[in-house]
Amino acid sequence: MLAAWVQGEPASSIGLDDRGLHYGDGLFETIGASGGRARFLGAHLARLARGCAALSIPAPDAALLAREVTRAAGLAPHVIIKVIVTRGALQERGYAWTGSESPTRIVCAWPWSEGPLAMRAPARTGLATRPAAPPLLPGIKHLNCLGQVLARQEARQRGLDEVILADPEGCIIGGGMTNLFVYTGDTLATPLAARCMVAGVMRAQVLAAAESAGFRACERAITAQELAGAEALWITNVRVGLWPVGGLGQRTYAAHPRTSILQHAIEQSACEAAGA
Amino acid sequence: MLAAWVQGEPASSIGLDDRGLHYGDGLFETIGASGGRARFLGAHLARLARGCAALSIPAPDAALLAREVTRAAGLAPHVIIKVIVTRGALQERGYAWTGSESPTRIVCAWPWSEGPLAMRAPARTGLATRPAAPPLLPGIKHLNCLGQVLARQEARQRGLDEVILADPEGCIIGGGMTNLFVYTGDTLATPLAARCMVAGVMRAQVLAAAESAGFRACERAITAQELAGAEALWITNVRVGLWPVGGLGQRTYAAHPRTSILQHAIEQSACEAAGA
Repeated sequence: MLAAWVQGEPASSIGLDDRGLHYGDGLFETIGASGGRARFLGAHLARLARGCAALSIPAPDAALLAREVTRAAGLAPHVIIKVIVTRGALQERGYAWTGSESPTRIVCAWPWSEGPLAMRAPARTGLATRPAAPPLLPGIKHLNCLGQVLARQEARQRGLDEVILADPEGCIIGGGMTNLFVYTGDTLATPLAARCMVAGVMRAQVLAAAESAGFRACERAITAQELAGAEALWITNVRVGLWPVGGLGQRTYAAHPRTSILQHAIEQSACEAAGA
Repeated sequence: MLAAWVQGEPASSIGLDDRGLHYGDGLFETIGASGGRARFLGAHLARLARGCAALSIPAPDAALLAREVTRAAGLAPHVIIKVIVTRGALQERGYAWTGSESPTRIVCAWPWSEGPLAMRAPARTGLATRPAAPPLLPGIKHLNCLGQVLARQEARQRGLDEVILADPEGCIIGGGMTNLFVYTGDTLATPLAARCMVAGVMRAQVLAAAESAGFRACERAITAQELAGAEALWITNVRVGLWPVGGLGQRTYAAHPRTSILQHAIEQSACEAAGA
């Protein structure tokens, strides 16, 4: 870790009584930064505010948090910044909150060695060997991440870049650390936010980039069965960007011409957001 | 909080890089202690070890942890002790673990003002207004507790002692902080561990007490519909013990003669365990 701050002050620890530790009672954002600028910062702050509203946690002041993130963005040419907001310290023992908690605001920074424009070999993926539990709070990026931890461990053990998860009904909920896009019937599709573990900031950027490029794109239920018949797959998050899938199990996918068009549109949008 | 220790040393904080905070990547036990003795300690340590195995976290040495819990038990006449074991500090950024983590062992103690033999008014309960997501890791007492947090908040808002949760199939998974027992057809029943958020230590004590008292008892799927027709309901955890339910929504339940028989058998078992 390059540096960390709690409530804006340099720190290396948090209180043992924090509800983030005891219950995962909080939210987080993982933000990429390049050249001293946090990418898609507005989208991250907006999602964090939505998550805070969903958990009835008072959202941190957006301007204050933006300054703290920007300070972290200046630490290296490329930085990954994690913002954590927990409900704060336990006011009394037990799960329920009292309403008198004061949120804990954490900003951590790591070097982002590959940066946003890394050329990556196509992703090796596979379907998870077991159905995933349907998300407790679909789309919300909260601190209850054991589903992601176990999925990412499965990917590591199987020598894959990512595992793709389906719920017990056979509907795709995404990858362990990514959202999934499918290209089929001349349309780009991604699972409904109501099915996703997290509704990713890069997922929204891809949908916007598709629209700006004049491509058909939609959110819909996607079954595990239809992945084999798709023309192309991509996995997305703010760190890996739009990453083409080269294989899912035994099925391989050829490079697709829309990949570079969408990647270019996403970078265009990142530059415009930074300039705004 | 009366006191807390990390890795056996007095402490009030943990590292910002702990995976317990970032992902809820860890386990916990809530242990009651009276007269300087931790109640049902063997059962707690065994469940913790099972949870560690499920998450591939090296379990702490049981004798060491037992000494640390017993030290905390001596702080007041009645103490609630929480043991948290996380996978440890992030070795690299991201969900997957490397295997080189060293677990963080936390012991916290709070005064247990009411103690184990509190006389309580019958519990006021209600069915949760929304289906609960099926547990990610049924029965395992891990740090991803937002389901419990939201359920307990609903109880508080509705002025109830507890809400009873059913999964989308209509099967009871337990209360927000308790396991549920149902008495019907001369048999005591509780949901299968495979459906429970947590397979409680008190739940196991009640099943054992029922057996020792010669009552019929079983674990089975229990639907929300059948609760209204039950002769009696109880909710259980190590803090509240075997707590008779006085009402579930509009349905009321009369005091049941088996309550005191089971409570007595549980206390007998606690004394024998302490003497062993």
